Amino acid sequence: MRTSQYLFSTLKETPNDAQVVSHQLMLRSGMIRPMASGLYNWLPTGVKVLKKVENIIREEMNKGGAIEVLMPVVQPAELWQESGRWQDYGAELLRFTDRGKRDFVLGPTHEEVITDLIRREISSYKQLPLNLYQIQTKFRDEVRPRFGVMRSREFVMKDAYSFHTTKESLQQTYDVMYQVYSNIFNRLNLDFRAVQADTGSIGGSASHEFQVLAQSGEDDVVFSTESDFAANIELAEAVAVGERSQPTKAMELVDTPNAKTIAELVEQFNLPIEKTAKTLIVKGATEEQPLIALILRGDHELNEVKAQKHPLVADPLEFADEATIKAKIGAGVGSLGVVNLPIPAVIDRSVALMSDFTVGANIDGKHYFNVNWERDVALPEIFDLRNVVDGDPSPDGKGTLQIKRGIEVGHIFQLGTKYSEAMKATVQGEDGKPLVITMGCYGVGVTRVVAAAIEQNHDERGIIWSSDEIAPFTVAIVPMNMYKSESVQQFAEELYHTLQSQGVDVIFDDRKERPGVMFADMELIGVPHMVVIGEKNLANGEIEYKNRRTGERQMIAKDELLAFLKENVKA
Amino acid sequence: MRTSQYLFSTLKETPNDAQVVSHQLMLRSGMIRPMASGLYNWLPTGVKVLKKVENIIREEMNKGGAIEVLMPVVQPAELWQESGRWQDYGAELLRFTDRGKRDFVLGPTHEEVITDLIRREISSYKQLPLNLYQIQTKFRDEVRPRFGVMRSREFVMKDAYSFHTTKESLQQTYDVMYQVYSNIFNRLNLDFRAVQADTGSIGGSASHEFQVLAQSGEDDVVFSTESDFAANIELAEAVAVGERSQPTKAMELVDTPNAKTIAELVEQFNLPIEKTAKTLIVKGATEEQPLIALILRGDHELNEVKAQKHPLVADPLEFADEATIKAKIGAGVGSLGVVNLPIPAVIDRSVALMSDFTVGANIDGKHYFNVNWERDVALPEIFDLRNVVDGDPSPDGKGTLQIKRGIEVGHIFQLGTKYSEAMKATVQGEDGKPLVITMGCYGVGVTRVVAAAIEQNHDERGIIWSSDEIAPFTVAIVPMNMYKSESVQQFAEELYHTLQSQGVDVIFDDRKERPGVMFADMELIGVPHMVVIGEKNLANGEIEYKNRRTGERQMIAKDELLAFLKENVKA
Repeated sequence: MRTSQYLFSTLKETPNDAQVVSHQLMLRSGMIRPMASGLYNWLPTGVKVLKKVENIIREEMNKGGAIEVLMPVVQPAELWQESGRWQDYGAELLRFTDRGKRDFVLGPTHEEVITDLIRREISSYKQLPLNLYQIQTKFRDEVRPRFGVMRSREFVMKDAYSFHTTKESLQQTYDVMYQVYSNIFNRLNLDFRAVQADTGSIGGSASHEFQVLAQSGEDDVVFSTESDFAANIELAEAVAVGERSQPTKAMELVDTPNAKTIAELVEQFNLPIEKTAKTLIVKGATEEQPLIALILRGDHELNEVKAQKHPLVADPLEFADEATIKAKIGAGVGSLGVVNLPIPAVIDRSVALMSDFTVGANIDGKHYFNVNWERDVALPEIFDLRNVVDGDPSPDGKGTLQIKRGIEVGHIFQLGTKYSEAMKATVQGEDGKPLVITMGCYGVGVTRVVAAAIEQNHDERGIIWSSDEIAPFTVAIVPMNMYKSESVQQFAEELYHTLQSQGVDVIFDDRKERPGVMFADMELIGVPHMVVIGEKNLANGEIEYKNRRTGERQMIAKDELLAFLKENVKA
Repeated sequence: MRTSQYLFSTLKETPNDAQVVSHQLMLRSGMIRPMASGLYNWLPTGVKVLKKVENIIREEMNKGGAIEVLMPVVQPAELWQESGRWQDYGAELLRFTDRGKRDFVLGPTHEEVITDLIRREISSYKQLPLNLYQIQTKFRDEVRPRFGVMRSREFVMKDAYSFHTTKESLQQTYDVMYQVYSNIFNRLNLDFRAVQADTGSIGGSASHEFQVLAQSGEDDVVFSTESDFAANIELAEAVAVGERSQPTKAMELVDTPNAKTIAELVEQFNLPIEKTAKTLIVKGATEEQPLIALILRGDHELNEVKAQKHPLVADPLEFADEATIKAKIGAGVGSLGVVNLPIPAVIDRSVALMSDFTVGANIDGKHYFNVNWERDVALPEIFDLRNVVDGDPSPDGKGTLQIKRGIEVGHIFQLGTKYSEAMKATVQGEDGKPLVITMGCYGVGVTRVVAAAIEQNHDERGIIWSSDEIAPFTVAIVPMNMYKSESVQQFAEELYHTLQSQGVDVIFDDRKERPGVMFADMELIGVPHMVVIGEKNLANGEIEYKNRRTGERQMIAKDELLAFLKENVKA
C-alpha cells in the first residue's frame, strides 16, 4: 500500500476526550473514529489489525475442533422470554419493534439463539459433542460507554457454544478451549493470565477469565509469584497462616470520642492498623437473623462476592442502614465491635489470628483495647471474607500473591443446563430417554483484544505491536527525499514491488513529506520493521533498518536486505 | 473435516415453504436455517461458502485499489435527518431509540455514515480520489421477506463509496469498479450481465446492475444476441425500424359492444393484434394538462419508468381513474383512442409505424377500424414508451434482443453530489475554494450471491458449485464400508491427512452410513470432486473419482490420485 493512495489519517495531537492510552493511540494512528457515543468507524489501519486478529482466532478455533456458524444480530424477543432474560437482562439489552410491531432485541450475546437452533437441529446423543462459534457484531447499550472500543456499545465478538450429554464431555471441551485461548493469546504475544473467575448468578461450575495485564485494566488479577495459580480478585482465596499469639495485656474500655474510622483510631492512639478490627453490618439471609456482623482486620477490604456466599448473609449482599444498626446494637457505625454484640458475627480468617486487638465497644465514643479471643469473647465462625493483598501467601502454598490490573479479553464458562433447561433443549440419550443438553460458552472480545494489545505495548512514540502477525503493515519503506533522488526512488519502487510480490504486507511512504514526519507516522502506527533508503547510504551499497520493538538501528548491505527481512519479519 | 464431527444437517425432504430452488437447496444442504421471518442462521456449510465469497470479493476490491473500513450497524438518526432520508426512506428503515431515548436506525446502507466520516476526515483535494469499502451486516425491514437469503431482512453486503473532486475522476473509479465487479463474477464463474440501469429518483448520471441469469430472478434483463449491449427492462431502449405502409382501406366506425379489451377485440373481429392500439390515460405533469394519453401497440406493454421521463407525464407515473376519464373524454377505458381525443397524446415509436389500425372511438361500444396517420388523424408526439420484447432489434444496431430473468447481485452507481451537498461534505479545491465532493457507490449482496450461484447452477441431485473456489469443500472422501475394511479405512485416513496437510478443503465422510446416503449427501452439498474408496478397487490399485459438474466417473491409479487431484482441483 502506498500512503498517498491510502486513508492514513494520523493525528499529531492527542484528542482531549480519550482517557486511556489505547483509545488515544487508536485515534492518533487513524485506526478508529467516533461516530456517536460508543459507536466507532474503523478506518483502514484499524480494520487491517482487526481482520488479522479475527483470522488468528478463527484459525486457532478451527484447530481446536470448533465449527464456524453465523447467527443474526437481530433476535426475536420470544427466545429471550423463554430463557427469562427478557426480564432479567436490564437496560443494556436494546429492545425494539419491527414494522409489524413484533418485539426484537439487538443481540448482546447468542445463548438463546443457538440453544433454539440446537434443539431443532440435534435429536440424538450421537450428534454430540459439538462446539459452534461465530465472529460477529454485537450490541450492548452501555450506560457509560468509555475507553474507546474497550467498552463500546457495538463491538465484534467471537462467541462459541458447546453442547454435551455429560459433564465429563463438557469438561473435555472446556479444557480444549482453555488451551485454544492460551494459544490465541500466546500467538498474539500478549502478557496474560487465565484466572479462575466467579460463576456468579448464572450458576455453572467453572469459569476462567483471560486477562491481559495492563495498568488501565478495570479488573484486579491475582497470581502467584511461583506457581500458575491465578484468579480474579473476587475469587482469589485469602489464606491466613501462622498461629495466634498469646494475650499480653488486659482488655480495657477506652474513650475514643473523635475516632469514627479505623484511620482516625490508628492515628489518634498510635495503634498498628493490623491490630484493629472493623465491623460491617449486612442484611441476613433469613428473617430470624436479619442482621449479620462481618469482621475484618482494619487494613483489609471486604470481598462482597465471598461474603454473600456465606449461608447467613443475604445474596446479593446489602449493607444495613445506620438507623437499623443503632436500633439493634445501640451504637453508631463508628463504634461497633465483636464484644457484647447482640447479632451473629462472622470473622475473616486473618481476624481469627489476632491478639491484643482493638474493636468498637458497641457504645458510642468508646473502644475496647487489647481484646483477645476466647479470653474476652468467644471465637465466632471463621470465613474467607476479604480481598487478598499483595504479598499474601498463595492459596496453593507456593509463593506469594501479586495483584495487577487486567483487561478481560476472553471468558470461558461451564454453563451447565441453565439455558437448555429453560428452553427445553434435549436429545435422545443412549437409553432412549430425553436428556437435557449440557452447555459451555466461550467468548473473546475481538475489538477489545486490539485495544488491550495496544494498552500493554506502546511507548511515547506510539503503538508497538506485540506480534508481527497483527501489525497493520509489517514493513515500512521510508525513502528520504525520493522526489529529488532518482536512485532512491528507483530502489524504493523496486523494493516495494518485490516485497508485495512476496506477499509481505508492506507500506510504502511515498508522500512528499519530511523524513521526520514519515518516521513519526510509521512509529505511531507501529510498523515493526522500517527500511530507510537514503541517497548516500545507497551509494555505499547500504540500507538503514530500524526495529520498532527494540529501537535498534543497523545498516544492512543492499544485496542482503531481502534475506534479512525474510529472516526477521514474522508474519 | 470429518462428517462425524461436523454439523452436517442435510435434509431428505424439501421444506414446504421454500418456493425457489436456492432456498430449497440451502435448507436441504444444511447451509441455513430460519430463525424468524427474514432472519437466518448460517450453519457451517453455509458459512464456509459465505466466507469464501467474501474473501474473493475482498481480494478483487483490494486489487482494484479500494480500501477496507468497517462502519457500525447502528447509526444515529441525525445523519439520516441531514440527508433527508429519515423522512424519505419508508418503513424498510428500522428505527428505534436507545436507553437514552435517542433515535437510531439499523443501517440498510451507509451513504450517510461514510459521508459524515469523510467530511470530518478529508480536508484537501490532494487526499482524493479515495474508494472505501466494507463487508458488513445490514438490515432492511422488508414487508414480505422471501426466497430465503435472496430477500431476507438481515443480510451481508459489500458496500463501497468513492470520493472525487471531478466527474472525470468518478468516471475513472466507476470504470475500475465495473471491471472489478466483472472480475468477481467471472471468478465465481457465473453467467451474468452488466446491464445499464435507471438512475431513478437518486439522480446521478450512470448506473449498472450486475445480474446473474436465472429463471427465478425477479428482474428482466435485456441483452443483444450479437453485441455486448445489456440493460434492465426499465431502461432498454425499444427501437422501431422500417417505414410506415400506405393506407389501403377507408376508416370505418364499427360497433364493438362486447370488446372492452384488446384481447376481446382481436378475438371477436379476427384482427392481428399488432394492427391494434391501446390508449392509457395517466396524470399530467402540470395543472394545464392534467391528463395525458399514452398510446401503444396492442401487443406491447407500457414501460412506466420510460413514460414518467416524458415532460408532460407526472413523475412518479399515476393512472387516471375511470370517473375522471369518463368526465373528460366521454367514454370508458375500453373504448378510448387517438381519433377525436380531447387531451394531448404521446405515441410509442412502434405506433408511429402502424397503418390500417384499430383504436377505440371515444364512444362507448365503438371502435374506428383502418385508421391511418395524417390521413385520419395528425401524428402526435413520438416517444419510447414500451418494454422491449424478445426479438426486438438491439438499439446499437447489432443483432436482436433477448430477455432473460436475472438476480441483481451487484449495483454500481454514480451518485454525484446528492449526499455531499445535503451533508455539506466539501474539500478545499486546488484554487483554495470549497468544493463539493462527487461520490460513487458500489454494492454487492454477498449473501445473495451465494443464493444466486445456486439458483443458476444445480441439478436434481443438488447444488453444483460454479467454481471450486466457493464450494464448501473441494474434495469429498467417501470410503465404502470403512468400518468393515481395514485397507479402506487406512487408505482413507491417510488420504485425508495428506490432503489436509496440503491445505485442500477436504471432507471425509466417516459416518457409519450406507454408500448411497454418503453419495447423495456429497452431491447435495455440491462437493466438486469425489473420491470413492472401495476394497476391491483398492486391491486392484485403483480409486474411483467422480466429478460433480460433469457427472463423469473414472478410475485413477492409486499412486496417481494425488497428482490427479492437484491437477483438477481449482482452489
